[in-house]
Amino acid sequence: MIYYYCFMKKLILLRHGQSEWNLENRFTGWTDVGLSEKGREEARRAGTLIAASGLTPRYCFTSYLRRAIQTLDIALDAMDELWLPVVKDWRLNERHYGALQGLDKVETAARYGEEQVRVWRRSYDVAPPALDRADPRYPGLDGRYSSLAEDDIPLTESLKDTLGRVRPCWEELIAPALSLHDTVFVSAHGNSLRALVMMLLGMTPEKIVYEEIPTGAPRVLSFDDGLNVVGDEYL
Amino acid sequence: MIYYYCFMKKLILLRHGQSEWNLENRFTGWTDVGLSEKGREEARRAGTLIAASGLTPRYCFTSYLRRAIQTLDIALDAMDELWLPVVKDWRLNERHYGALQGLDKVETAARYGEEQVRVWRRSYDVAPPALDRADPRYPGLDGRYSSLAEDDIPLTESLKDTLGRVRPCWEELIAPALSLHDTVFVSAHGNSLRALVMMLLGMTPEKIVYEEIPTGAPRVLSFDDGLNVVGDEYL
Repeated sequence: MIYYYCFMKKLILLRHGQSEWNLENRFTGWTDVGLSEKGREEARRAGTLIAASGLTPRYCFTSYLRRAIQTLDIALDAMDELWLPVVKDWRLNERHYGALQGLDKVETAARYGEEQVRVWRRSYDVAPPALDRADPRYPGLDGRYSSLAEDDIPLTESLKDTLGRVRPCWEELIAPALSLHDTVFVSAHGNSLRALVMMLLGMTPEKIVYEEIPTGAPRVLSFDDGLNVVGDEYL
Repeated sequence: MIYYYCFMKKLILLRHGQSEWNLENRFTGWTDVGLSEKGREEARRAGTLIAASGLTPRYCFTSYLRRAIQTLDIALDAMDELWLPVVKDWRLNERHYGALQGLDKVETAARYGEEQVRVWRRSYDVAPPALDRADPRYPGLDGRYSSLAEDDIPLTESLKDTLGRVRPCWEELIAPALSLHDTVFVSAHGNSLRALVMMLLGMTPEKIVYEEIPTGAPRVLSFDDGLNVVGDEYL
């Protein structure tokens, strides 16, 4: 049994730690803020935990957003594995928060009501108000998204919309990497990881609403050879 | 003329800044030491210079060694371009320093003589004493090089040997990237960059001996459409 366990495929999921905007209590989404010093410390600790677990990832994925990239870089440095291949993909970005991006969470609750904000944050298929394409926050104005089809550039997203882009990223990139390498490491965001976990664990929309992924705590999914999940634990 | 200049291909070369072992005055080679605080500051300054120049790299390369990877990460962060694709390749590693790796430079000069050490450091085709495969410093014992053919794993290297691996890295990876993207960024090491510059500028072995690449100073080679160098300047 232990022998079998050793040869299972492993996917390490890591949610980035505290960012500069978590500190300021603002909706972040695709806004490209960096980690706070506490966030950096969370990343170092996560790297130390992964190294101590004996897991040896051989391929890494992260988003286009610096807080997830920095988390990966700091964790890999702590693991003495900075040389590992890293592929960055916009489809692992945080859920786009639409016109709420940049707003103070308390002010937003005062303006729209606590219940409305709770629905935007926690529901499966309700998206916050959409951005206008003329809004300076529209991702199409950011060079890094210039190669995307206009239809792929979000104006806002529900968790369901996020899953709609995380799924092809899994199918085209992460699953093939996991077929080639025994252990793969993904550093991403609260909602892109919730979407991935929902898909991989076959969770219902009713159940995903209650699923929280803590920051800086490496979560390890184990897979059989058919890439079905057979284990789920935090380090 | 300015119009033409704007459309030339650009290759940005950056030699990593001060490492922990530069501080200790030891031969480094493939030893995987990190940057000193001064080296981090050099990387930030280089990123600021590149951003201020208006150059917008769209593809990056670095070695398997953390001092070059950290330099690239810090520079990209300063440029607000951490999302850029980065490919790491062992063939951009520093020249392997053989049995000298880890030795104090002053002690080595006292033991072998100043002139011998000068020849090892500056000649084109003389390599330092080779490592034994049982030596703990042998790269074949390091997991990151486990996929290499034994013949490709150096026991020591002259600059000529380094060029022998930098050349196929250029031909297979960097030149094709430069054909696809207008600007490509390489963060590497004193001798892997000397080898690359020697090859691209068609320098003779006699001339490369005097070629020094300063740390933390982005060097920009410009190319015509046939990937011939038509310009060479530091930012």
